Amino acid sequence: MKTEILKLLRESQDYVSGQQLCETFGVSRTAVWKVMNQLKEEGYEVEAVRNRGYRIVGSADVMTQEELESLLDGRTKWAGQHVVYSDEIDSTNIKAKQLGEEGASHGTLVVADMQTAGRGRRGRGWDSPSGSSIYMSIMLRPKFPPVKAPMLTIVMAYSVARALRTCTGLDVQIKWPNDIILNGKKIVGILTEMSTEIDYINHVVIGVGINVNTETFPEEIADKATSLRIEIGEVQKRAPIVAEIMSEFEKCYEEFEKQEDLSFIQEEYNKLLVNCGKDVCILGAKESYQAHALGINETGELIVRREDGSKETVYAGEVSVRGVYGYV
Amino acid sequence: MKTEILKLLRESQDYVSGQQLCETFGVSRTAVWKVMNQLKEEGYEVEAVRNRGYRIVGSADVMTQEELESLLDGRTKWAGQHVVYSDEIDSTNIKAKQLGEEGASHGTLVVADMQTAGRGRRGRGWDSPSGSSIYMSIMLRPKFPPVKAPMLTIVMAYSVARALRTCTGLDVQIKWPNDIILNGKKIVGILTEMSTEIDYINHVVIGVGINVNTETFPEEIADKATSLRIEIGEVQKRAPIVAEIMSEFEKCYEEFEKQEDLSFIQEEYNKLLVNCGKDVCILGAKESYQAHALGINETGELIVRREDGSKETVYAGEVSVRGVYGYV
Repeated sequence: MKTEILKLLRESQDYVSGQQLCETFGVSRTAVWKVMNQLKEEGYEVEAVRNRGYRIVGSADVMTQEELESLLDGRTKWAGQHVVYSDEIDSTNIKAKQLGEEGASHGTLVVADMQTAGRGRRGRGWDSPSGSSIYMSIMLRPKFPPVKAPMLTIVMAYSVARALRTCTGLDVQIKWPNDIILNGKKIVGILTEMSTEIDYINHVVIGVGINVNTETFPEEIADKATSLRIEIGEVQKRAPIVAEIMSEFEKCYEEFEKQEDLSFIQEEYNKLLVNCGKDVCILGAKESYQAHALGINETGELIVRREDGSKETVYAGEVSVRGVYGYV
Repeated sequence: MKTEILKLLRESQDYVSGQQLCETFGVSRTAVWKVMNQLKEEGYEVEAVRNRGYRIVGSADVMTQEELESLLDGRTKWAGQHVVYSDEIDSTNIKAKQLGEEGASHGTLVVADMQTAGRGRRGRGWDSPSGSSIYMSIMLRPKFPPVKAPMLTIVMAYSVARALRTCTGLDVQIKWPNDIILNGKKIVGILTEMSTEIDYINHVVIGVGINVNTETFPEEIADKATSLRIEIGEVQKRAPIVAEIMSEFEKCYEEFEKQEDLSFIQEEYNKLLVNCGKDVCILGAKESYQAHALGINETGELIVRREDGSKETVYAGEVSVRGVYGYV
C-alpha cells in the first residue's frame, strides 16, 4: 500500500485528503497516519494541512523498495517491474544470477544500498559502501543467440549515459566498452555476466555501479574516480536515476531485440564516446599498440586506425583500451 | 575409510587380512567387519576366508561416493578428484553450477543415481529414472576466453565415445555436436552450460547423460534411443565408465588447453563421426538445406558440401543437424 500511496501523493498536483486515501485503499485513518510517519522517517518531507490533507513537498535521497516501485510503476513495461531491494547484499549480480536460475521474470531488477562482496570484472572487488552509490543488476532472458549478448553491455552503457545526462544535465561520456566517464574520471562501471548453452541464453545479468553521493575516494583512485555529488556539489537522489535508466534501457533493448545489432544507436553512441577521435592504447593478450579510435561499428566493436593507416576492429572480449596519457 | 579399504581390496592380488586393515587404518576388528557388511549390502561380493582375510570377487553395479572415489583415486590429477555424489538430485548440471558459483575447484564432478529435474538442451526435460543411467556433470574453470568454450562439447563427446569403446568394445559413434550413437540410436546426450563475462569464463559445466542399464524406452523414442544393456544383453557397471570418461577427458582437456583448438583430435574425431561422409539436413534459423557432411574443422565446426558443390562450415550455435532419413 505504501508504494501506491507514494505514487498517488507524487502524481497529485494538490493535497490528497486522508479521507480519500482511506477510501481508495480501504484502510483506517490510523493506518494512513502510520504510513505518513514511516515516509517521514525514511526521508520524505510530508506536509499535512488540516482540512486539505497530505502533500509531499520534497525528500532526501530515499532508496527503498516502495520508492523504486512507485517511480517505476507505469513507467516501464518489464524493466524493473519486479524490484528486489535490500539494504545490504553480497552482490547484486550474484543475487540477480540466483533469481535467474530460480526462474525470475525478464527484467527483474536487484537494487541494494550496500554490497558486502561487490564485484568488478574478472572477479575483482568493487568498493561498495552504504548510502552513497547505486548498486543495481537487471536480469534478462534474451531470445537471440549468445553471440549477440556482449552487445548488451553497449546498450546498457548507452542507456546509463543518456539517463545521467537527463537527470543531471552533465556532459557524461562513455568509455568503451563498459565505463561511464565524467570530466575525465570514472563514475560508472558495468559488469555483464551470462549463463548460456552453446546456442541458447539462459539469462544475462547486467550490473551497474554508479558513484552518486560518494564524498571522497581513496587516494590511489582519487585522480580517476568521481561522483555526481563531487561534480555537482550537492547530494543527488538515487531512485529517480534508477528509474530513468530502466526507462532508457527498456526502449533501447526492445529496439536491439528487433534489429540484433547496434546500427540504431551507433551514430549517437559515437558522439558520447570519450575515446572517439583520440589516440588510445589497445592492450591485447598477444600484442599492444597505439591507435586512433574511430568509434564503434554496428556490432559494438571498436574501429581503430593503426599508425600505418590500416583500419582494424577490436573486440571487447579480446582487448582493453586506455588513453595514451592515462585512464581515458 | 571405506574408500581406502575398497581401493586396497581392489588393488590387492591376494586376500587382505583383517589384521592388516586394522593396522593400516588404526581401527578395531569390529569396525572392519562393519565396513565389509556395508560393502556387501551395497552390492559387492566380499569373500572372507579364515586366516587369510578379505577379497572382493565381484560386484553388482555399485554407484556410491566411495566406489567412484576409489576408482578415481590416483587415476586422474583433477578430473573427478572431488566427487559430489547423491542418490537423488534435481539435476547434476544445476548442482555443478551452484558449486561453481560457490568456488568449487576445477574438475569437481557431480554424479547422481537419479534426477528429479533432469535437463536437455534449451531447458527441455531429460527423463532420469533411478538405477539405470549415468548422470554426471563436471565443473571446469578454463583460462581461455569464452569464445573457445563451445569446443569443450566436442572434447567431451570425443572423450565419452573413446571411454565407451574402451569399456564395452562396441562401435560407438559421435553425432555432431553433442550426442553419442550406438547402432544408429542415441545412447548419450551432452549439455554444456557456461557462466561468463564478456572476456572471461567464470565456469563451464558439462553434463553427460548415458543410458547404461535402461531396459525399455517409451514407445515414442524406442526407435531412436538405446542403452548399453539393450545392445550388450547384460547389466553394465556404471562407476568404471565414469572413471574411464574422467581419465580420457583429463588427457584431452589438457591438450586442448595448450592448443586452444581441436587439430590434435580432428582426424580421430572424424573417424568416429556418424555423420561423416553422409547426407544430412542442416536446420538453421533462416534456412534449411541438404548437404554432404565432410567432418569437423580444427575449431569444431562442421564442414559440409552443398548440392551446388560449394563448401560451408556450420556452427553448433546456429544450426542443428539430422540425417536425411531420420535421426542419424
